[in-house]
Amino acid sequence: MIKVSNRAAVMQASPIRKLIPFANIARSKGTTIYPLNIGQPDIPTPTPIMEAMRKFDAKVLAYSPSQGEDFLIKAFANYYSRIKINLSPEEILVTTSGSEAIFFAMMAICDVGDEIIVFEPFYTNYGGIASETGVVLKAARTYPETGFHLPAKEKIEELITPKTRGILICNPNNPTGTVYTNEELQQLAEIAEKHNIFLIADEVYREFVYDGQKHTSVMELTNIADKIILVDSISKRYSACGARIGLIASHNKDVMEVVLKFAQARLSSPTIEQVGAKAGIEMDASYFEPILKEYQQRRDTIMAGIKKIPGAICETPGGAFYCIVKLPIKNAENFAKWLLTDFNYEGESVLVAPAQGFYSTPGLGINEIRLSYVLEVPKLARAMEILSIAVKEYNSKE
Amino acid sequence: MIKVSNRAAVMQASPIRKLIPFANIARSKGTTIYPLNIGQPDIPTPTPIMEAMRKFDAKVLAYSPSQGEDFLIKAFANYYSRIKINLSPEEILVTTSGSEAIFFAMMAICDVGDEIIVFEPFYTNYGGIASETGVVLKAARTYPETGFHLPAKEKIEELITPKTRGILICNPNNPTGTVYTNEELQQLAEIAEKHNIFLIADEVYREFVYDGQKHTSVMELTNIADKIILVDSISKRYSACGARIGLIASHNKDVMEVVLKFAQARLSSPTIEQVGAKAGIEMDASYFEPILKEYQQRRDTIMAGIKKIPGAICETPGGAFYCIVKLPIKNAENFAKWLLTDFNYEGESVLVAPAQGFYSTPGLGINEIRLSYVLEVPKLARAMEILSIAVKEYNSKE
Repeated sequence: MIKVSNRAAVMQASPIRKLIPFANIARSKGTTIYPLNIGQPDIPTPTPIMEAMRKFDAKVLAYSPSQGEDFLIKAFANYYSRIKINLSPEEILVTTSGSEAIFFAMMAICDVGDEIIVFEPFYTNYGGIASETGVVLKAARTYPETGFHLPAKEKIEELITPKTRGILICNPNNPTGTVYTNEELQQLAEIAEKHNIFLIADEVYREFVYDGQKHTSVMELTNIADKIILVDSISKRYSACGARIGLIASHNKDVMEVVLKFAQARLSSPTIEQVGAKAGIEMDASYFEPILKEYQQRRDTIMAGIKKIPGAICETPGGAFYCIVKLPIKNAENFAKWLLTDFNYEGESVLVAPAQGFYSTPGLGINEIRLSYVLEVPKLARAMEILSIAVKEYNSKE
Repeated sequence: MIKVSNRAAVMQASPIRKLIPFANIARSKGTTIYPLNIGQPDIPTPTPIMEAMRKFDAKVLAYSPSQGEDFLIKAFANYYSRIKINLSPEEILVTTSGSEAIFFAMMAICDVGDEIIVFEPFYTNYGGIASETGVVLKAARTYPETGFHLPAKEKIEELITPKTRGILICNPNNPTGTVYTNEELQQLAEIAEKHNIFLIADEVYREFVYDGQKHTSVMELTNIADKIILVDSISKRYSACGARIGLIASHNKDVMEVVLKFAQARLSSPTIEQVGAKAGIEMDASYFEPILKEYQQRRDTIMAGIKKIPGAICETPGGAFYCIVKLPIKNAENFAKWLLTDFNYEGESVLVAPAQGFYSTPGLGINEIRLSYVLEVPKLARAMEILSIAVKEYNSKE
């Protein structure tokens, strides 16, 4: 018998997708399932993006440059300058999605066994990419009761070892929806400066910030410019997840130089999507206004629903389209499965992501779920009503 | 000063692309440069592919499943069955290009420090991806004088250590154009069987086989089915390099299971291109007839040109669209640069890839170049004439 590698064998399968087979069975039995588990926006992809791709008429669908098409890099640089971030074209490299940008960032700063500090709960694919690259994630805990805001500086510094190479944040946050304050960013900058480590920020939800709050980009921390790596993507911003276009940016020339080598090893990102991405990025910022309004309403709908579940804990999240809810149940994974296999309310049920998979410390997040709000308001309201009834019924049975 | 990782720092930059800046300078001075350095086919991308992508009209450009779209996987399975390769849909996973398939294959079978046997000269990105994944490539040498065919079994077995996890071949070969015989494949199967190691084959040039030869796929080695990993891509086959659609296939369930986890960690491959790829794969095999004829003519043109360079050594390659030529010069890298900076013939010159970058053993391939024939016959003939004159002039100056 021939064996696969150990690193492959121990890698976690996607916790977001593992309940899908049960949802499919429930659907096949006629149950309507409201999906609250994934980050696939339902907002139509903007017409300019789709039109630009349709108009692509080169005779040969050729490789693009490894660093990305010039026109796209310039469009990104312009986009950043409009939001007061100063990045020259040489400081931007197009990646095949934000996931690849994370991969490049980890590889660029870490050798095998090196450590990156993250804040749990965190986006599960950080764990997957860390497994692939041999990077050890050291997780500092954040809590539902404090809206998943960052721990005190000392708590973060406790995790620093001689192997620590960086801190990785997602801001606005997936899976918590938390928008870090300017003070929190400054605190991270102080730590990065003091310990000479990188600060990587995944800002793919940058525009999705509610209640008139201001988002602080890591690129505003100009005093530690050489330690900053920005990860970005058009997936959520323009409802174009299937385009697989992201970027990595840094003022650090050494970082950009090695990242180019990684990019060359996979030749190029998809060509037509770069044409589409340019059209999206060049849209006026007013594009976001109705969308933001819509997401804020959805967030409010979700929060109103959570308030009707006695004992549920969730501080109102300020951004992205996720929240983590602590439920008055024992085991969220059992509950999430039960929702699909043993429960329905008037022929309907909900699909949620157990939050355990977003924690790396065993035993944490056991009674928490992640909800994403990528459904229209009436459907969300109904889904939350069903969830509330389900919690009650589940607890009365236990 | 903050440093990048060691693995990033030591990684080789693309040897194929490194002369491009000099070519651009030559062009800006008015010199016509014939590019013989890259594998970007000039054959138009088939209309069915472009049309299918243009017709994509989903409202949301959404993620595709991590393993790829069902319709594409089924189309690939049908394509294989037409060429007598038996692969079920569960044994195929769509990747974002052949490069990603190589990456997944290395990660699936090797832990950091594990070894894979390759045959030098080899496709440079194998080296890049090995650097990224911490895999050690052990190279067995092949020679221009024997058409870069595989060494004797004992020579290969000499490289096997307790850390050897597999053998990786590219067949038909980039950069040599060599098509391995059925006997060579059987020999590799014996080695894999005896030493319980994997055999990975990159067969992206499968259809590009000339002179009526038959290509033996690694998938025909059914006696070692659990040890076979196939890497494939539509890039060259359908002149669709910019689509970034490839696949990894194996009868080994454990391999496919871990590969799915890698695929989940990057979410999905580009969506629209999967629609295009399906249309390409479903084309009749007759599509390849005129294209094969064209490439065979080009190969003959290249070979006729090489024969006119006294002292040049290159056995006629049987496939792909590359060859490695040993030139009667001292240093091919200096020569290739000189072609761009100090030489022109009637205002024209050529861009070639020094072969040194395709060898991992220092000092090998120093007087060799790789030529790719992705230009029309008259241009190729002219380029070879110029190359011949250049060799003569270069040697008279030295």
